[in-house]
Amino acid sequence: MIRASEDNEFYELSSPTLLPKASGFLWNEKMMIHMNCRGYAVAQFMQPEPAKYSYAPNLEAKTFMQPEQPYYAHHPGRFVYVKDEETGEVFSAPYEPVRVPADRYTFAVGKSSIVWKVECGGVLIEMSLSLPKEEAMELWRVKVTNLSQRQRKLSIYPYFTVGYMSWMNQSGEYHEELQAIVCSSITPYQKYQDYAKIKEFSDKTFLLADRKPVAWEVNQEAFEGEGGITGPSALQEEELSKGDARYETPVGVLQYRIRLAPGEEEAYRFIFGPAKNEEQVAQIREDYFIKSNVNGEDGFEAAEREYDQYIREGRGCIEISTPDPDLDQFVNHWLPRQVYYHGQTNRLTTDPQTRNFLQDHMGMSYIKPQVARESFLLALSQQKPDGSMPDGIILHKDAELKYINQVPHTDHCVWLPICLSTYLDESNDYSILEEQVPYADGSGTETVLEHIHKAMKWLAGDRDERGLNYINQGDWCDPMNMVGYKGKGVSGWLTIATAYAFKVWADICEYGGQAEIAKEYRRAAEETNEVINRYLWDGEWYARGITDDNVVFGISTDQEGRIFINPQGWSLLSGAADEEKREKLMRAVREQLETPYGVEKLAPSYTSMREDVGRVTQKHPGSAENGAVYNHAAAFYIYALYSVGEREDAYRLLRKMLPGPTMEDIVQRGQLPVFIPNYYRGAYRQFPRTAGRSSHLFNTGTVPWVYRCLIDGLFGVQGTPEGIAIRPQLPSEWSEAKVRREFRGATLQIEMKREPGVTATEVYANGVYLENGVLSDLKPGTEYKVSVKIPVSE
Amino acid sequence: MIRASEDNEFYELSSPTLLPKASGFLWNEKMMIHMNCRGYAVAQFMQPEPAKYSYAPNLEAKTFMQPEQPYYAHHPGRFVYVKDEETGEVFSAPYEPVRVPADRYTFAVGKSSIVWKVECGGVLIEMSLSLPKEEAMELWRVKVTNLSQRQRKLSIYPYFTVGYMSWMNQSGEYHEELQAIVCSSITPYQKYQDYAKIKEFSDKTFLLADRKPVAWEVNQEAFEGEGGITGPSALQEEELSKGDARYETPVGVLQYRIRLAPGEEEAYRFIFGPAKNEEQVAQIREDYFIKSNVNGEDGFEAAEREYDQYIREGRGCIEISTPDPDLDQFVNHWLPRQVYYHGQTNRLTTDPQTRNFLQDHMGMSYIKPQVARESFLLALSQQKPDGSMPDGIILHKDAELKYINQVPHTDHCVWLPICLSTYLDESNDYSILEEQVPYADGSGTETVLEHIHKAMKWLAGDRDERGLNYINQGDWCDPMNMVGYKGKGVSGWLTIATAYAFKVWADICEYGGQAEIAKEYRRAAEETNEVINRYLWDGEWYARGITDDNVVFGISTDQEGRIFINPQGWSLLSGAADEEKREKLMRAVREQLETPYGVEKLAPSYTSMREDVGRVTQKHPGSAENGAVYNHAAAFYIYALYSVGEREDAYRLLRKMLPGPTMEDIVQRGQLPVFIPNYYRGAYRQFPRTAGRSSHLFNTGTVPWVYRCLIDGLFGVQGTPEGIAIRPQLPSEWSEAKVRREFRGATLQIEMKREPGVTATEVYANGVYLENGVLSDLKPGTEYKVSVKIPVSE
Repeated sequence: MIRASEDNEFYELSSPTLLPKASGFLWNEKMMIHMNCRGYAVAQFMQPEPAKYSYAPNLEAKTFMQPEQPYYAHHPGRFVYVKDEETGEVFSAPYEPVRVPADRYTFAVGKSSIVWKVECGGVLIEMSLSLPKEEAMELWRVKVTNLSQRQRKLSIYPYFTVGYMSWMNQSGEYHEELQAIVCSSITPYQKYQDYAKIKEFSDKTFLLADRKPVAWEVNQEAFEGEGGITGPSALQEEELSKGDARYETPVGVLQYRIRLAPGEEEAYRFIFGPAKNEEQVAQIREDYFIKSNVNGEDGFEAAEREYDQYIREGRGCIEISTPDPDLDQFVNHWLPRQVYYHGQTNRLTTDPQTRNFLQDHMGMSYIKPQVARESFLLALSQQKPDGSMPDGIILHKDAELKYINQVPHTDHCVWLPICLSTYLDESNDYSILEEQVPYADGSGTETVLEHIHKAMKWLAGDRDERGLNYINQGDWCDPMNMVGYKGKGVSGWLTIATAYAFKVWADICEYGGQAEIAKEYRRAAEETNEVINRYLWDGEWYARGITDDNVVFGISTDQEGRIFINPQGWSLLSGAADEEKREKLMRAVREQLETPYGVEKLAPSYTSMREDVGRVTQKHPGSAENGAVYNHAAAFYIYALYSVGEREDAYRLLRKMLPGPTMEDIVQRGQLPVFIPNYYRGAYRQFPRTAGRSSHLFNTGTVPWVYRCLIDGLFGVQGTPEGIAIRPQLPSEWSEAKVRREFRGATLQIEMKREPGVTATEVYANGVYLENGVLSDLKPGTEYKVSVKIPVSE
Repeated sequence: MIRASEDNEFYELSSPTLLPKASGFLWNEKMMIHMNCRGYAVAQFMQPEPAKYSYAPNLEAKTFMQPEQPYYAHHPGRFVYVKDEETGEVFSAPYEPVRVPADRYTFAVGKSSIVWKVECGGVLIEMSLSLPKEEAMELWRVKVTNLSQRQRKLSIYPYFTVGYMSWMNQSGEYHEELQAIVCSSITPYQKYQDYAKIKEFSDKTFLLADRKPVAWEVNQEAFEGEGGITGPSALQEEELSKGDARYETPVGVLQYRIRLAPGEEEAYRFIFGPAKNEEQVAQIREDYFIKSNVNGEDGFEAAEREYDQYIREGRGCIEISTPDPDLDQFVNHWLPRQVYYHGQTNRLTTDPQTRNFLQDHMGMSYIKPQVARESFLLALSQQKPDGSMPDGIILHKDAELKYINQVPHTDHCVWLPICLSTYLDESNDYSILEEQVPYADGSGTETVLEHIHKAMKWLAGDRDERGLNYINQGDWCDPMNMVGYKGKGVSGWLTIATAYAFKVWADICEYGGQAEIAKEYRRAAEETNEVINRYLWDGEWYARGITDDNVVFGISTDQEGRIFINPQGWSLLSGAADEEKREKLMRAVREQLETPYGVEKLAPSYTSMREDVGRVTQKHPGSAENGAVYNHAAAFYIYALYSVGEREDAYRLLRKMLPGPTMEDIVQRGQLPVFIPNYYRGAYRQFPRTAGRSSHLFNTGTVPWVYRCLIDGLFGVQGTPEGIAIRPQLPSEWSEAKVRREFRGATLQIEMKREPGVTATEVYANGVYLENGVLSDLKPGTEYKVSVKIPVSE
C-alpha cells in the first residue's frame, strides 16, 4: 500500500483515502508547489514576496505557512474529469473532486516529479507534474489509455483552479492563437505608492496546451451549474460552452474528445503558471512547445530533464545501508533533498528568521558548502556593531521584516558559532574567519572572527546580575513572549545555549590559531554552566526560565509546562549536566516527554493562558510550540544524546521522527515518509486521539540537525581539521552498517561490523589501523576502504 | 415566483435556483447577517472591530465588505439535513448543500426575520431567523411537518458552519449540561502588545438547543467523510459519533430522531453566535430558554418580539400609493429600512468614511433626527481648526483610520452643509447652528456655524490659481488617486460640488439670520460656476478634472472614461449649467451613460491603466467605480434632475434602480428588490452579458439620496423654515398618487391627481388653497388633508 519504488526515486501510495493528506512537494528557483495525493495543491511563487496564481475561492489572508491546513471542496487543485460519452459516467483523477473509487490507484512522490496512475472502468489516467529549473510554472503531462477490450468514446477535461483572484479586477478568456486560457487580475491595493510595485507583478494565470481543445470553459459558475464541483452540469453537454469570466471566478478547463481503440493512448501536455502578459505566454508557448533543440527535444522535455538534473545536484554526502531499510530510504533519498530545499529556497521568504537562515545553511554545508559560506557572510553583514543580530535576514532590497520578525528575540547570536562549526568540519575552510565583512550600519568592516567575538560578547553582556541571559520577547521559542518583556525575565535554555556557543567558539578559535582566546571562552562556558546549575536545576531536570516576576518555570511544581525538552539536551551539550544530572534528566524526558511519535517539546501542554509565560500557552494543546513533538527540538535533544554517547535513546528517538514502520503508525501520522514535518501533534497523554499527526509543514530547522545526528553521531563520520574522525554509535540492535561518505573530494567506503572478540572499536583505512579513528591527509579524488570493527556489546 | 407577501412584511422567492444569490439581511446593535436564499451566510459582529463566529474553511483576509462575492461549497451557511430513516434518502433545507430540488420552496425576506419553507418528499421544513435587539446572536426556529399520508421516521440534523477559526488554537465539543456545542479559538496575534485586546474577545462560537439532541458532531472532517459536504458519510450511520474537534475544523451538527404521524409536526429552536466563555453560554440558555416573563414568554420569544419592534421604529416619513406597485412596495417597506440600517450601524465599521457618515445621517434625518443631530456634532468635533475634515469619523476610542481612510481625500467638507440642510428641512432645528463644538486638536470650541464657515473657507482656499479645487489622492471617487497626487491636479466635480455647497450654505445662513454672509457665499458660488464653465465645459458636457500634468479628462477626445456622470448632475445643482448646457449634457448622459439598468458612472469603462487618472482605471470594467451603474452617483443625478424640474428623465432613472418589473430583468440583476445595491454591473455597451448584475452590497450612500429624490423631488413634500412645500413632480404617465407624509409631528394625507382644466398645479389643505403650495404653521398631532390638482399635461 505504501512503498518505495524499485528505483528508489519515488515513494508510492496505493489509495487516496488511506492517507488523505499525503503529499509531496517540488520547488525551483522561483516557486514551490505542495501536491496532495487527491489533487489539491498549494503553490506560491516569489515576485519578490510570495504570490499565488491559483487562488482559494474567497479572499484568503496573506500569512506565513500554516500547519495542519484543512482541505475543502473548492480548495485549489489540479484535476482531470473523464466522461464516457456512451454511458455518461464521469470520474476524476487523481480522486477529487468526484471521488469515484479507482480500480487501481498510485500516487508516486518523486524527487523531481509527482505522478499519479488512476484506473477507473478500463480507462487509465496518468498525470505527472514537474517544474522547470528557474521559471515559476507547472509542467503537466496527462496520458489517457484505453485498458478495456472495446473502443471508447471519451471526453477528458483537464481542470486547473484559478479561484478568486482579486476584488479589483479579474477575468479570463481562451486565446485561440495561444491555445491557452489566460486569466487576468490586478493585485488589490489602495495607496498610489504601491502602484509602482503592483504594476510589475505577474498578475495573470495561464493554462497553455500542446494540443488544441475542442472546447473550453473559463467561468467556474457556468462550468459547475447546479451540479457543483463534484458533478459539474457542463459535463452533461456534448461540448463546453466556450465561455469567459468577467469579474467572475475564473477556472481553466479544456475539453478533448477522443476515440480510443483497445490499448490505444493519447498524451497531452499543459503548462500552468503566472505571467505578466499575453506576450509572455506566447513566448512560453514558443519556447516550450514549438522550438526544438539539437537533440530534438522541445523546451518542455528539456526543462523536465534539466530540472531533474538540478534536483540531483542536491544529493547528500552519505549513502547508507543498515538493518533499517526505511531509514536507508529516507536518508539516502529524501533527507538531503529536504536539506537542499531549505538551502535553495530560504523557505520562500525574503526575510528568513536569522536562526532559521543560519541553521538552513548549516545543512547546506553538507551539500553546497559555497552557498553556505556566502549565506553566513550575508548574515554577518547585517549584524549590528554592538554584536547583536537582527531578527531576520533581508534577502531582497525591497524586503522588510514581517510577522514574527518584528518581535525582538535574544538568541540569534548563539547560532553563529554553532552553525559555522559544521561548515568548518565539512570544508576545513578556516579562511572564512579572516573574511572582511561590513556591519549593518555601514560603520566599517571587520573579520568574521571579530564579528563572532562581538556576538559572543553581546551574549555575555545581555544578562542579569545572576549571569542569566535575558529573553526579552522570545528566544528560539517565538511565542514565549511574555516571560521577559518587562526586561527582567531570563531564558534558561538561552543561558545554556550560550555556554555551548562559547565552547564551540572556543574550539573554532583554537583551531583558528587563537589558543589564548579559546581559553577565555572555555572559562566563560564553565562559569555559565555553574550559574545554570545554581539557578536552573530543579532536582530532576533543568527549568526553562525565570519570569519578569522572578518565578522559575518549567519545574516539578508546575501543573502545565512542567518540563521542557530544550534545557535538558542543551545542558548535555554545554557540559552543565554531570553524569548524575544526565541520568536524572534523561529519565524525566523518557517518562514525561517521550511518546510513540517522538519527544514532546514540553509537557503537559498548556490548556489555558499563563500570562507570565505568554502566547505559547495559548497555542492549541499539542500543536506547534505548545507540546507538539516539535522535531526541531527533538533533533537538538538527539544530537545532544549522541554528543555524550547515549546512542540507544538517541537512535530510538531519531527513528520516531519517521513514520512507521507499522501501517497503523503511518496512518496516524497521515504522511508519507518523504519529508520530516516541523511537528507531529503532541499532548499524547492529554489528547491521545490526535497525537502523532503530521503538521504537513516541511519548512523546519529539524533537517540539518538530523543530518548532523547522522554525521557526527550515529555513523560518526565528522570532519576535523586533520581529516575525518570515524566514531560510529550504532544502536545495539544493529550488527552492521555500510556508509559511503563523500568528504572534501574523497570517497570513503565504510563497513561497520560488530565482531566477536573486539573489545574496543577499531578503525582501518585501506587496511591500516587509525589512531583514535582519525583518517588524515585525505586526497581528493581518492576512494578509501574503511573498515570499522565494533564490539558485540558496547 | 417573486412577489411581496400579502401583509407586505416579506418579499418572497419560490425557487432557490432562479436567483441563486438572492438574499436578505438583518442587523441589530451589535451585528449584521446577510442570508442567501440557498442557506449561505455572511455574518459579522463588533468587538469593537468586525469579527466572525462562523468562518470560511480557510484563513480568510480581513477586509472591507466586497461586492459580488462568490459562494462555494464550503461557504459559511446554516442548513438542515433531513434523512428518511426508512429509505435513507437525504435532502437539505434551504437547498444547499445537498441541492435536492424541492417540491415547494419559499424564501421570504422579512423586515425582522428571514423565513424558508421547503417541502421535499412530503416533509416540510420551516426555518426562520431573527435576532435579539442588542446581542450578537442568531435566533433560529426549525419546524418539521409530516405532510404525507404515512408515518415518517426521520432524522433531522441542523448544521451550522463554524469553519477555520484560528491557526493558534481551535477546538469544539458538546456540553451535555448546556445542551450546546461550544467551539473555542484564540484570535491569532504575534505581538504581546495585542494580548490585552485579544483576551477580551468573544472567541467562542456556540450552538445552543432548546431540546436535547440524540447525538451530535463537532468535527467537520469526521462528519463529511468521503461523502463530502453534499452527502456526509456520517448521515449513513444511525447516530452521529458524538465527536469533538481538537485543532480540527469545528462544525455544529445536532441530530434529532423523530416519528411523525401524518400531519404531525415538531418544532425546535437554536441560538448560534459568539461568546466569551461557557458561563456566558449558560447565562444565555437561562435567559432565553429557561426563564419566562410575566406574559409567559421565554427570553427567545420576547427577543423576537422586541427585535420586531426595534425594526419597526425605523419606518420612514412617507407612505405612498402610486400606479407603480413595485415602487410603492419598495418605498413603503424596504427603502426606509435600508436608510435606518445605515444610520443605526454606520456600516459596521468603527471609522466610517466622513462623506458616508454624513450622508448616512442625512438619511437618518428622516427617521431619527436626534441621532442625525448627534452624529453631525460628533463629525464636527473631529474637524481640524484649519476647517478640513478627517477622512473617517472615529466612533470608538480604540478605533483607527483603516484601509481607504489612510488616503487623503479633499471632498469631505462639501457634505457638511448639504447633509445638514436635509436635517434642517426635516426638523427646522436651526438651534443646531449655535451648538458649541470642539475641534479635533482640543484647541477650543466654536459654534456649528463657525465650524462650517471654516469648512467652506477651507474649500475656497484649497484651489489652484484658476480657482479649481485640488483633488489630491481622491475625492468622492476614492480610486481616482493619481489625478492630483503630485499636488497640482484638480477635480472638476469637486469644484462644482463646492459651488453647490456654497449655495446650500448660503440658504442655511440666510434662514439662520445671516443675510449678509449668505450673499457672500452666493457670490462665491457664482464665481465658482464661472470658473467651471471656463475650464471644464467640453462642448457637450463637463469634464471630470484636470491632471497634475494639466490634461483635461472625461472629455470627448478620450477613448475611455469619456464622460462621467457626476460633473453633469452637480452642474445642474450648482447652477453652472444654463438651459442650453443642460439640454446638451442630458442628451450626452442618455446617449452614453444610460442603460436598461440605470445610468453608468462613467463610460466607456477603462480597460487598462491610465496612470494620470489612477487606480479607478484598473478596476474591473463595469465594476465598482469603473463604469458600474453606481447607484450613489445615479441618485445624485436624479436628484439634480428633480432640482431643475426634469421629472421624466428623473423618474425613468429612479425606476431603474429597482429590479423589474419584468422577470427577465430581475433575473439579470440577480437580486430581490429588498435593498438597493451599491452598484449594478455596468459597461453595458462593452460587456452586455454581465451588465445589470447586482453587487449584492447594501452599504451605500445611495439610499438617503433616493429618499431625498422622493421627498424633495417626485412627491415634492420638502420641509421649509415656514412649514412644508407641496410641489410634486409626477411623471407624465401617472394620473394620480397618494402620499401620507409624517412631518414635524403632523400628518399630511395628500392626494395628487391630474385633472382636466387645471393649468397650473393647485394645492389645497383641508380645502384651503395654498400660495406656492406651502403649508405653514403646522400643528403637531394634527392630520391635514391635502389635495393637489395637477394639469393633465405639464
